Amino acid sequence: MRAVDIILSKREGRSLTRDEIRFFVDGVTSGSLPDYQASALLMAILLRGMTPDETAWLTDAMVHSGARVDLGEIPGVKVDKHSTGGVGDKTSLILAPLAAACGVPVPMMSGRGLGHTGGTLDKLESIPGFRVNLSLEEMKVALARVGCAMIGQTAHIAPADKKLYALRDVTGTVESIPLISASIMSKKIAEGIDALVLDVKTGSGAFMKTEADSRRLAESLVSIGNASGVKTEAIITAMDAPLGRAVGNALEVGECIDVLSGGGPSDLIAVSIELTARMLVLGKVARDRSEADRQARAAIQSGAGLERFRQIVEAQGGDPKVVDDRARLPHVADRQMVTADRAGFLTRLDAELIGRASVALGAGRDRVEDAVDPAVGIMVMIKPGDRVRAGDPIVELHYRDRARLEIAMRLASQAVVIGDQPPPPPRLIVAEVR
Amino acid sequence: MRAVDIILSKREGRSLTRDEIRFFVDGVTSGSLPDYQASALLMAILLRGMTPDETAWLTDAMVHSGARVDLGEIPGVKVDKHSTGGVGDKTSLILAPLAAACGVPVPMMSGRGLGHTGGTLDKLESIPGFRVNLSLEEMKVALARVGCAMIGQTAHIAPADKKLYALRDVTGTVESIPLISASIMSKKIAEGIDALVLDVKTGSGAFMKTEADSRRLAESLVSIGNASGVKTEAIITAMDAPLGRAVGNALEVGECIDVLSGGGPSDLIAVSIELTARMLVLGKVARDRSEADRQARAAIQSGAGLERFRQIVEAQGGDPKVVDDRARLPHVADRQMVTADRAGFLTRLDAELIGRASVALGAGRDRVEDAVDPAVGIMVMIKPGDRVRAGDPIVELHYRDRARLEIAMRLASQAVVIGDQPPPPPRLIVAEVR
Repeated sequence: MRAVDIILSKREGRSLTRDEIRFFVDGVTSGSLPDYQASALLMAILLRGMTPDETAWLTDAMVHSGARVDLGEIPGVKVDKHSTGGVGDKTSLILAPLAAACGVPVPMMSGRGLGHTGGTLDKLESIPGFRVNLSLEEMKVALARVGCAMIGQTAHIAPADKKLYALRDVTGTVESIPLISASIMSKKIAEGIDALVLDVKTGSGAFMKTEADSRRLAESLVSIGNASGVKTEAIITAMDAPLGRAVGNALEVGECIDVLSGGGPSDLIAVSIELTARMLVLGKVARDRSEADRQARAAIQSGAGLERFRQIVEAQGGDPKVVDDRARLPHVADRQMVTADRAGFLTRLDAELIGRASVALGAGRDRVEDAVDPAVGIMVMIKPGDRVRAGDPIVELHYRDRARLEIAMRLASQAVVIGDQPPPPPRLIVAEVR
Repeated sequence: MRAVDIILSKREGRSLTRDEIRFFVDGVTSGSLPDYQASALLMAILLRGMTPDETAWLTDAMVHSGARVDLGEIPGVKVDKHSTGGVGDKTSLILAPLAAACGVPVPMMSGRGLGHTGGTLDKLESIPGFRVNLSLEEMKVALARVGCAMIGQTAHIAPADKKLYALRDVTGTVESIPLISASIMSKKIAEGIDALVLDVKTGSGAFMKTEADSRRLAESLVSIGNASGVKTEAIITAMDAPLGRAVGNALEVGECIDVLSGGGPSDLIAVSIELTARMLVLGKVARDRSEADRQARAAIQSGAGLERFRQIVEAQGGDPKVVDDRARLPHVADRQMVTADRAGFLTRLDAELIGRASVALGAGRDRVEDAVDPAVGIMVMIKPGDRVRAGDPIVELHYRDRARLEIAMRLASQAVVIGDQPPPPPRLIVAEVR
């Protein structure tokens, strides 16, 4: 089998065989396939597409590039959740303790923020002492003890994905639904979970800007998961404005504690409960969605979710007192408001621009190797649809550095659109795919 | 300027700017652009195409990756000819001495055979002592002395092309009209010629299998040449069967001597005279095509062309006595015939399969680094359209090695198709593009 023949096949729009895809992924993993051949093939795949079969074979080959975790010793139906990434998208820190409190084991492997979107690992690490780099054994211990572990992807999980992603990032081959699907699902399948709930974001602040693309991605992901024995369903949720009010690592942890304490913004609560309820049904601790919904809400009201969050933090070396004393989370004293320059209705608060403003403050990163500042970020004071008067605060920037603040203020100001008429009520949960 | 943005632009089907193309070619030349980014861009170019402007800018950037030869000290309009490659396509060795004999300086830079097609340099090197690697100074001396020099591409000529071609060869990005055009024309423009005649082959033994593709390539080449100040015209000629009767290096040299001596097969004479006549008009030694045609034929009849060939061979260190004594050319004693298995008409003698049979005998190469055997090859005894009886010889294989012969016999036999009806008379010169 010659790499150039595989490239030619895909270039001409033909379907690759399972063996050809395996040859490609094995070559990338071992390094025997030169990067220049891999990148030519990636571009051909991006422009010519892949059938569902090809995408499933690609995912499978990527799973087999590393180890598939065996969680058989942990009783129960193990359920994880994955989001395609958004701004203020912090539901993992809410739904994982809630689902665990309701009896579903949650072995969660997450990523870091990149570009304008945040990442669960960065948020968790803003809790003093919290370790996300547990070994597999430590992860199993945590799972057995508190029913949940929230960790980073280990090197054993789908190593082909790491190499392919690094190459895609520099060769303009990121935005391909088959490649995105295989990247996401190979990692999730290799985790050893039984079921998966996906939150596919759609809108200006999401990776997929249109509902049609989001739906195609959701369908591709669900089909791969189910074909490989991981019961998978997806919801498509809006990402035109930040989810909740907090954007930035410690600020978002604080907001999750608010929600688990029975407070917090209604949009964040709605998406978190929706995802938790689906995990409870897939995890077979609830018969149907309405029962699951009641269980999830009860876990908030009883304080069981918050207590579980405290245990997870403690099990992973973090300071559990942050739950009761928000001042123990990293924070900065300096604040700056973006205010309304006229009266009217907030018709738009662009998620991507708010995300980029937050990155400018230091809360995120443009390059994988950059560090993040856990304390800085943005609080949204007014949500789209709210009425404003001239001078009303719209977002509050928590900053450490004046030069960074200037850039962030410019971006955040651009994110704000005030109109005379209220915008149509936003759709939050757009669709489900299962 | 970031490489990944250029890749994204082309991936989305947008036109690149002159500066972006320059950045790409300069990066390839200097090595600052990684191969994996270059190959992703090449695939995007192949699948998305390039406008005539982009193709011209690419060519220009490739010309400027090296030196443009200055032939200003040589008087006269310098004219070269380039063929896109075929089987038995040996016209260079005929038209170069004919045009030189008629007063047109011919500074010819040629390539080697690759795959099923032969190359002028390999043919010339079958003449004992012939040196194709003249320095630029030696080339100018030969041009001044005998009006013609036939050499290989020097390292100073369009070095970006060498690097890009090597990458295209292993990444499935060869078959792109803009990339082929820029590759051919950058080398020709950098040679310092004033005018160029192109022989774009079409048919089963050509790189371009269809007349439509051949015409698109010819139009692209002619437009680039004229835009950069090299007066360029093209003919499209058939390459379904080998041109002439000889396929293989020394055998082809012998056939060229035949033509220059007033003999030789009619198809080879026709294409050679057509190309020579166009060179004479472009070279301003003939007023029009019919005058040029007469001059070219006269140079054969008078023996001036053959004499000039002898001088060229001598000027480049070759044995000029090969002209009078064919036995001084490398040859093998062993011959094997492919014969007709039935009576009828030879309806097809597939050029590509005959070319591959010749490569199998050792006359060509599949990889750039392979050596060729100058003596072996194939003589075509019967041309398509001829009537055959069962047992009649069709092609004669000149071989050195029995194992190679077996493979070549199988390929050559596959090339032969005998039918009951004569095929439609072949079109030889299909079209002109200027």
